Amino acid sequence: MILTALEFLGLIAFAASGALAAVRSRLDVFGVVVVGLTTALGGGVIRDVLLGITPPTTLRTWPYLAVCGGTALVVFVFHPQIAKLRRAVLLADALGLGVFATAGTTIALNAGATPYAACLIGMTTGIGGGAVRDLLLREIPLVLRKEIYAVAALAGAVLVVIGHALRLPPGPVTVVAAAVVVGVRMLALWRRWNAPVAKGPETG
Amino acid sequence: MILTALEFLGLIAFAASGALAAVRSRLDVFGVVVVGLTTALGGGVIRDVLLGITPPTTLRTWPYLAVCGGTALVVFVFHPQIAKLRRAVLLADALGLGVFATAGTTIALNAGATPYAACLIGMTTGIGGGAVRDLLLREIPLVLRKEIYAVAALAGAVLVVIGHALRLPPGPVTVVAAAVVVGVRMLALWRRWNAPVAKGPETG
Amino acid sequence: MILTALEFLGLIAFAASGALAAVRSRLDVFGVVVVGLTTALGGGVIRDVLLGITPPTTLRTWPYLAVCGGTALVVFVFHPQIAKLRRAVLLADALGLGVFATAGTTIALNAGATPYAACLIGMTTGIGGGAVRDLLLREIPLVLRKEIYAVAALAGAVLVVIGHALRLPPGPVTVVAAAVVVGVRMLALWRRWNAPVAKGPETG
Repeated sequence: MILTALEFLGLIAFAASGALAAVRSRLDVFGVVVVGLTTALGGGVIRDVLLGITPPTTLRTWPYLAVCGGTALVVFVFHPQIAKLRRAVLLADALGLGVFATAGTTIALNAGATPYAACLIGMTTGIGGGAVRDLLLREIPLVLRKEIYAVAALAGAVLVVIGHALRLPPGPVTVVAAAVVVGVRMLALWRRWNAPVAKGPETG
Repeated sequence: MILTALEFLGLIAFAASGALAAVRSRLDVFGVVVVGLTTALGGGVIRDVLLGITPPTTLRTWPYLAVCGGTALVVFVFHPQIAKLRRAVLLADALGLGVFATAGTTIALNAGATPYAACLIGMTTGIGGGAVRDLLLREIPLVLRKEIYAVAALAGAVLVVIGHALRLPPGPVTVVAAAVVVGVRMLALWRRWNAPVAKGPETG
Repeated sequence: MILTALEFLGLIAFAASGALAAVRSRLDVFGVVVVGLTTALGGGVIRDVLLGITPPTTLRTWPYLAVCGGTALVVFVFHPQIAKLRRAVLLADALGLGVFATAGTTIALNAGATPYAACLIGMTTGIGGGAVRDLLLREIPLVLRKEIYAVAALAGAVLVVIGHALRLPPGPVTVVAAAVVVGVRMLALWRRWNAPVAKGPETG
């Protein structure tokens, strides 16, 4: 129940981030909806393909599509006001990352993946949608550019696996792990944590 | 029988569109063939992976590869003449879109997908090859930029699902649905239908 | 045994090529590791998804990740010295191509794919990681640009299939086939073999 609510929050957050990026690339209304849907549903489709769950869950029932498409349309119409709320958008993106990485890990464990594989697949679920969005819009994916992104997702996935090993209830564990991911991302953005760039003649 | 003929028509159309785009990007003959094959076979491979049909059908038997590779080579040799036939190329691309979207929906239904999932997978089959082509050549995918593209594919997929629900024969239904997709695309190109772009400070 | 050694050599080679390309794109240490891992593991993940082996083998056990991540970190720290060894890097990339294309073909045959499908999937395994690397870094994939690349991979895959049909032992066959791929690539680079580019008004 909590998990379902969180999942839809994550879908809305990612759909909004994809639609906003598409508006900035001056796509028309269909392009905005396609990018919004791809960003929101992409991570889950990659997850299900890696786990052999076919057809992917998010392509099977309509609420996923309706929520994401509706979100993209709202962004298309009201985007100037939303763009002003830059901090809220970043929070939403972090929330999507946290929810998808941790829920993806739980789903992988339930599908019989080893804890190790579940961590990698969970992290990929969190990162995947945003990476597809940036590839479609011809940008170097945020995960390669930005502060503490993949590491935050991985931390959340590891927490879920630890909770699973300790036989803690999966619902609360996922909420806590997702909150940790969001917290790490927000801290990284707030404090402008940056990882080092290699030094040398090419980059001097 | 009609379906097989249509399918190869679609393969040829997509292989030609991929090869032509590759020639324009100044790739060598191998690059032209690789992009032609990827464009023609890509949608079907994505469809089969989403449906859990492995190895994908188009990788299993040689006629698919031979037809697409041969088409790409013909484009490589004769491309100046083909490029002049811009209207014919656009018609062929629309034909590929229509055939793949509707045949993909039929295949998904036959593989046991729900009508809803079959629509989405069929639409993805039609769009997929062209999206991969544009990603390989570093362009924002046509589906995000161009007039009525994804919507035309979706309309064809929905028609196939309706025909399936009414227990109409799948062959003629697919032909009619593909024709509708081609008609909508051609009308959109001819009348230069464009969807609205969001207004606001970023795009003013 | 020989095969396992070769496979890890291939992983190291591809991880190094990905990490080096990422350093050149001025990514931070996390980006370098992510691109290194994606390049090294990407081909195998695509191969397993096409064969329906889920979760993919390389996501199941930790040595793959540890070796590739470690290689990427070494490249990040020592990249100026490595970049000077341009010839060694090209040899390593060719080695990765050869090992992955031929081992991918063997794995596909063992998974029950037809010889024809095994060739295509093996070639895709060899090419896949590098293509993903170039897409992430917004470059036109090397496979589309460079001398005799896909063809070398395909030649290795065909040799493995012939050896399989003649019931030769798979280990030595793979080593010989991989050596042929590396030799062809090295010869192509050394002699600067280039395939023809289409002539015409667009490219004049």
